[in-house]
Amino acid sequence: MLSRKDLFKDTLRKAAHAWKRIIELRLSEEEAHMLRSYVDQPAFTDLHWGMFIPAIKGQGTEEQHEKWLPMAYKMQIIGCYAQTELGHGSNVQGLETTATFDPQTDEFVIHSPTLTSSKWWPGGLGKVSTHAVVYARLITGAQDHGVHGFIVQLRSLDDHSPLPGITVGDIGMKFGSGAYNSMDNGLLRFDHVRIPRNQMLMRVSQVTREGKFVQSDVPRQLVYGTMVYVRQTIVSDASCALARAVCIATRYSAVRRQFGSQNGGPETQVIDYKTQQSRLFPLLASAYAFRFVGEWLKWLYADVTQRLQANDFSTLPEAHACTAGLKSMTTSVTADAIEECRKLCGGHGYLSNSGLPELFAVYIPTCTYEGDNVVLLLQVARFLMKTVSQLGSGKKPVGTTAYMGRAEHLMQCRCEVERAEDWLKPSVILEAFEARAFRMSIACAKNLSKFSNPEDGFSELSPDLLEAAIAHCQLIVVSKYIEKLQQDIPGKGVKRQLEILCNVYALHLLHKHLGDFVTTSCITPKQGALANQQLRLLYSQVRPNAITLVDAFNYTDHYLGSVLGCYNGNVYQRLYEEAWKDPLNDTVVPDGYLEYVWPILKQHIRTARL
Amino acid sequence: MLSRKDLFKDTLRKAAHAWKRIIELRLSEEEAHMLRSYVDQPAFTDLHWGMFIPAIKGQGTEEQHEKWLPMAYKMQIIGCYAQTELGHGSNVQGLETTATFDPQTDEFVIHSPTLTSSKWWPGGLGKVSTHAVVYARLITGAQDHGVHGFIVQLRSLDDHSPLPGITVGDIGMKFGSGAYNSMDNGLLRFDHVRIPRNQMLMRVSQVTREGKFVQSDVPRQLVYGTMVYVRQTIVSDASCALARAVCIATRYSAVRRQFGSQNGGPETQVIDYKTQQSRLFPLLASAYAFRFVGEWLKWLYADVTQRLQANDFSTLPEAHACTAGLKSMTTSVTADAIEECRKLCGGHGYLSNSGLPELFAVYIPTCTYEGDNVVLLLQVARFLMKTVSQLGSGKKPVGTTAYMGRAEHLMQCRCEVERAEDWLKPSVILEAFEARAFRMSIACAKNLSKFSNPEDGFSELSPDLLEAAIAHCQLIVVSKYIEKLQQDIPGKGVKRQLEILCNVYALHLLHKHLGDFVTTSCITPKQGALANQQLRLLYSQVRPNAITLVDAFNYTDHYLGSVLGCYNGNVYQRLYEEAWKDPLNDTVVPDGYLEYVWPILKQHIRTARL
Repeated sequence: MLSRKDLFKDTLRKAAHAWKRIIELRLSEEEAHMLRSYVDQPAFTDLHWGMFIPAIKGQGTEEQHEKWLPMAYKMQIIGCYAQTELGHGSNVQGLETTATFDPQTDEFVIHSPTLTSSKWWPGGLGKVSTHAVVYARLITGAQDHGVHGFIVQLRSLDDHSPLPGITVGDIGMKFGSGAYNSMDNGLLRFDHVRIPRNQMLMRVSQVTREGKFVQSDVPRQLVYGTMVYVRQTIVSDASCALARAVCIATRYSAVRRQFGSQNGGPETQVIDYKTQQSRLFPLLASAYAFRFVGEWLKWLYADVTQRLQANDFSTLPEAHACTAGLKSMTTSVTADAIEECRKLCGGHGYLSNSGLPELFAVYIPTCTYEGDNVVLLLQVARFLMKTVSQLGSGKKPVGTTAYMGRAEHLMQCRCEVERAEDWLKPSVILEAFEARAFRMSIACAKNLSKFSNPEDGFSELSPDLLEAAIAHCQLIVVSKYIEKLQQDIPGKGVKRQLEILCNVYALHLLHKHLGDFVTTSCITPKQGALANQQLRLLYSQVRPNAITLVDAFNYTDHYLGSVLGCYNGNVYQRLYEEAWKDPLNDTVVPDGYLEYVWPILKQHIRTARL
Repeated sequence: MLSRKDLFKDTLRKAAHAWKRIIELRLSEEEAHMLRSYVDQPAFTDLHWGMFIPAIKGQGTEEQHEKWLPMAYKMQIIGCYAQTELGHGSNVQGLETTATFDPQTDEFVIHSPTLTSSKWWPGGLGKVSTHAVVYARLITGAQDHGVHGFIVQLRSLDDHSPLPGITVGDIGMKFGSGAYNSMDNGLLRFDHVRIPRNQMLMRVSQVTREGKFVQSDVPRQLVYGTMVYVRQTIVSDASCALARAVCIATRYSAVRRQFGSQNGGPETQVIDYKTQQSRLFPLLASAYAFRFVGEWLKWLYADVTQRLQANDFSTLPEAHACTAGLKSMTTSVTADAIEECRKLCGGHGYLSNSGLPELFAVYIPTCTYEGDNVVLLLQVARFLMKTVSQLGSGKKPVGTTAYMGRAEHLMQCRCEVERAEDWLKPSVILEAFEARAFRMSIACAKNLSKFSNPEDGFSELSPDLLEAAIAHCQLIVVSKYIEKLQQDIPGKGVKRQLEILCNVYALHLLHKHLGDFVTTSCITPKQGALANQQLRLLYSQVRPNAITLVDAFNYTDHYLGSVLGCYNGNVYQRLYEEAWKDPLNDTVVPDGYLEYVWPILKQHIRTARL
């Protein structure tokens, strides 16, 4: 309920307080990260620690590390990551800001040649950052060497005023009332700003004193390693956000009763309606599924890192495609699921204190940043087409595409389900998902081959390619969930519940994408109907443990921030108490009554001064 | 960017100003309604004119009309519609507020016996209304006669303070930063508040001086007539809201360029990507489709009204089911579509000045009010099951269910599509949608018959029943669009464009619900693939006229309220100018810098006073 200015000031206060505690408690970097994440509000510190420092670490030389990192670690400088521009987001290679080398002074001249080259969106840029890693086209002589990173000071360390040649400000209000409005996403223009040559991040490429552009032998693939890392954390975060929304909707569905009173008894709990279950329980299952695939991605990142250190790049393209796809799929599903959970809370879900509107508003940018979700899926599709094209060549597909090595089997296999309970077998589910994903990829490849220009074909068929990529990503999540269940899982009966959820996850996807499965002849319409029948039985099995399954996420009421989702279920009392806290209730007669309501009621409106 | 209090005061100001103009210009009721709707912000006047007055008109006696309507028309009193309670929304019969007749004083005692009986949500109640139509359980003697409406004064006409026994206030912040926060959705509790007997709305039922409950011979079905009217306006509004979002996304997609630059030329317009087209053009087609079905609903309402006047209730159940279904389907699709349009605008869609976040926030309650969308679809499903069960009885299905009369044909027909262009024939599309809807209903009926208790069956199969209801509603929209195209349509080439959109609308639904069509054997997988192929060709045909098709909605830039959707396409300049208007940009150094940022930078955080 704060105005933009007050909200922003409050965010600065929280960030300062968090930093004070981090220092006082001598927290490790990881502990500090957790403390900040529990402040649970976007702030400039996210970019300083999450983007500015990693960019210098990843792209800077040893020398640059020594100069900049100690200051950054102590926050003597505060940095942001100035990549996207007004005119360019996804297409990084199209950025327009220029960094022209001036051999006379041994400097780069950073400049914004057009309106659309204005830096736009970087968090922390608008009002706080003293420095930025700025991405700009490197120009030496008359030659354009593409986009590189440069460390640029933006504001005076004395009085925080922008340095000469720099225009900087906030880009304005965003979705929601809180959400990212606590962040100073900024705009930035350069008017021939000069920086020393040694502020270009020079780990991979260098410009010499003479203005010669040189590339070192550091493998460029290292960049992919970082991407795998960042996207893996996004998948974990998706699971957390989804779990939070599902926890609220599930608890409230157990408290809320509507219709179905018999003989004056209580009405039916909303969670007992099959319509509610069929929308809610697949989301609950997805929260667990994303958690497990997130855990597996952590392993994948460790594996990739180890291989990189041994100069083994063989699994990198597959790992990159896999994390791109999972980032896209899990965040898209989570964004929609948060809104679906809000709807599942009925009218009261529309109240801010349900926690769901702001959870939605703060979550949805995840679908755009670190790779637009559609662009990422197209990358996955491209990788799948490449994998398919190499199938005959003896090059064996690896990792999450290994199933494509069993091409003949997957093209011929027929689902053997005869009774609904046959759908409970993990091997049956896995084969259906593998066959569907594979056949969709093959169908795309076949249609692509009809085009004389493959790029035209890729563009024309891109909607189908997206669907094939999604089928592949869903298969990954299903298969990793099944693998998880093959391990020991502590706690009596826990494994059984997780098995039920795994089946819910797979079968709800099968029902949702029934057209895919049936038209590729992976299953028959009859088998589809049996799957749907089994799904309904599974919902009944989830029901008794639904509350426990969300309690297991272990969110405190404070962190959950939802009146509807509170642990003790005392929803109505809390709704009533919260209402009175609205500023509109400060006075019985509202501000504006005398000027604007009284003249209407008393028929004085013609003479009222409005 | 206003605080809640300032936003609310501003809304009062606009409402007063609108009322002043309405009086000065002597506007008719319809013109006044239009003026208010163009203020384009939820306000207490919506409820006064849209619910309070209609409730008195519809449920009051002549005598009550004479007493209350003149005051209400002059706004000497301002009213709201106090139906929903903290504990009850959809289940109106479960309301807990009581109105107990006291024969001693000839009064009703209005009382809130429980916390959950608190009135909750009524717009205009929180801070403004002087009166309310309150729905409460009528109790005479010891008998409960169910829920009835009562006119209750809430606030003093002298100083606006709540009358004795009345607790009233605002329920707090809602989704978004503007949206419904301009409305004083309220809470209300009664502590034995007494009103004269003649303030019960007595058109349909009466309580005599002796406390006897009497029902007049006014047909109860009249209520349905009003519901048909209200829901018809909601469908029209859905089309408007959807058109607004689509207009923004389409225009911006033509301005935005990303990737695909060849030889240094401009990059590709985003609207030229098939992935963008496959998401955007079906929404454009839906906006037109909903407009035409909305126009048809206007006719339906006129027809129903005429029949009611002649005491012909025969078409009422079908008309009621049809409008319930269309309200549900069009509002659900529109809510999702607004968010999809936001995503189609990429990162910049997340900015408030794109217009899309607030359009979403202000639209989504439509899915809940005037009947929760899931509850409504279940009503449709119930009607469909009843219609199916009567098929053998000789009772012919009427109106939008008339197709069910051709049961034998619809169960046997096979789609004759052999080439992609066969899918352009309206008769082919219509038959496929009819057969699919009918077979899904029949399948549900068959599965229902396996349950010994039909209510258990209905409850267990409700997810399938929802899908059958949706298939039926989609058929209605498709068929009304096709009917529209059989009429004369002025303007050279306009009809051709509308035909293309009609095919896009139908074929994108067919692709989305491919599982339905194939598993019911309405079409073969091959025919599904041909439909998808035809759909891609249609997108290419929509493309050249896409901008014209959204310009045709004829929204002014002012009404559209979107930087991204402005008519002249000067998007980047406007984004840049708008940014500077944010309050955070009032000062170069932000408020809070000295207290919270400077101490961090200067390593004084340990001693800072936070």
